[in-house]
Amino acid sequence: MANWKEIDKKAKEWIEEAGERIRESFSTKLSIQTKSNPNDLVTNMDKDTEQFFIKKIKETYPEHRILGEEGFGHKVESTEGIIWIIDPIDGTMNFVHQQRNFAISIGIYEEGIGKIGLIYDVVHNELYHAIKGEGAYMNEIRLPKLEKVSVKEAIIAINATWLVENRGIDYKKLTPLVHDSRGIRSYGTAAIELAYVACGRLDAYITMRLAPWDFAAGLVLLEEVGGTATTIKGDKINIIEKNSFLIAKEGLHEEILAGYLQK
Amino acid sequence: MANWKEIDKKAKEWIEEAGERIRESFSTKLSIQTKSNPNDLVTNMDKDTEQFFIKKIKETYPEHRILGEEGFGHKVESTEGIIWIIDPIDGTMNFVHQQRNFAISIGIYEEGIGKIGLIYDVVHNELYHAIKGEGAYMNEIRLPKLEKVSVKEAIIAINATWLVENRGIDYKKLTPLVHDSRGIRSYGTAAIELAYVACGRLDAYITMRLAPWDFAAGLVLLEEVGGTATTIKGDKINIIEKNSFLIAKEGLHEEILAGYLQK
Repeated sequence: MANWKEIDKKAKEWIEEAGERIRESFSTKLSIQTKSNPNDLVTNMDKDTEQFFIKKIKETYPEHRILGEEGFGHKVESTEGIIWIIDPIDGTMNFVHQQRNFAISIGIYEEGIGKIGLIYDVVHNELYHAIKGEGAYMNEIRLPKLEKVSVKEAIIAINATWLVENRGIDYKKLTPLVHDSRGIRSYGTAAIELAYVACGRLDAYITMRLAPWDFAAGLVLLEEVGGTATTIKGDKINIIEKNSFLIAKEGLHEEILAGYLQK
Repeated sequence: MANWKEIDKKAKEWIEEAGERIRESFSTKLSIQTKSNPNDLVTNMDKDTEQFFIKKIKETYPEHRILGEEGFGHKVESTEGIIWIIDPIDGTMNFVHQQRNFAISIGIYEEGIGKIGLIYDVVHNELYHAIKGEGAYMNEIRLPKLEKVSVKEAIIAINATWLVENRGIDYKKLTPLVHDSRGIRSYGTAAIELAYVACGRLDAYITMRLAPWDFAAGLVLLEEVGGTATTIKGDKINIIEKNSFLIAKEGLHEEILAGYLQK
């Protein structure tokens, strides 16, 4: 049986070491490439950081599989065994333009069940972390269970892409939510937006498309504080595929789903 | 003649002291009121902080006038003399919900000309500051002149309010900008969004309505790094009235104005 305390300790050591390497990189020159389209940037730090984690995991846990954004891990087509789901830099565009508002995201799953979630806001040195069943933390502070709010008191993260004509959703479904909620935010990093929901700084997060490395860690955190995550149709999340997401506090999730998305 | 170095020194001392008081307040209970509508929050810290500045300014510079968001200053109807334009907490909603992503904003103007700009990101301890003609800084780091970018490489701050049906602008003018730009962000604090443009983390910021206390400090910073600020029609800003804003790097400003807003 897996020793989750030990795996958690190792993962935290590695994430802190990787964070330190990223902070040091700010003084050297970045090289930037584009992936599928010009707005999907990738830097040498994305690739180096993923390879750093893969080397560590393969040495220490050769039987574990790895699903990483940059594609240096395994081809993962089932949820069997233990899988590390890694985004070495979530929010690469912010990393390039702002040198902040990005995070390392690591979710570790066993037979499809989230066991460990780690989101590291490298620049602000804030590590959001959880082991299943033991609560979620930001650094040493335990995150309280999320309190109920209604749409009119809610701050919701939605990327502008989904508020104008787009291929993911009829944007007119979201317009009333912009009018009715207390405010809409967009930070350009799913991992930090998920961590913000987990610690109550945001009340909900809606997006049409996240990959496993974007959400794997966040879902573990969220479960520990009583948040709800489904697709925008209310369906269960498939953790090794892309999904749409409605992530929210209990009650608010039902209010948004029934009152806006399913209307 | 005013001694601007001395005024700047005093203003920095006071802003740091006010920041310290706000940080301390996180351990005590906030009381929250609403202003004109339920989403326009005001806390005891907004009011206390404005009164703190007013007391200091009146004691030290009794001849200066003060225009403050919470209304404890003077009724300012002309740009004559020296005017301190103060937002004690810009981003009150973030202050309440997130205990971060808010700033103290102070612009000091003489005969309508911006002389000193101070934006203090209290939680991250980042003070953005400028004296007219002497460059802009974040803490001790001098901010470089802004480099030219095109819309397709630009990250632009726009609040979701303006991207859906609203009373400020035909939202369909902004839809192509969402599609063409590299990304849209929204942080819920004009002062920090202006500071982000001044240090190149954002390339532009578009909004339909800012009050003097939201923009007074930011415009001083922006001028020092070569940014351009006009209304969304391309008109000059009236510094003691509400204005719409198109704030951007040189070149990008013209591209957005001619290619999107004036279309």
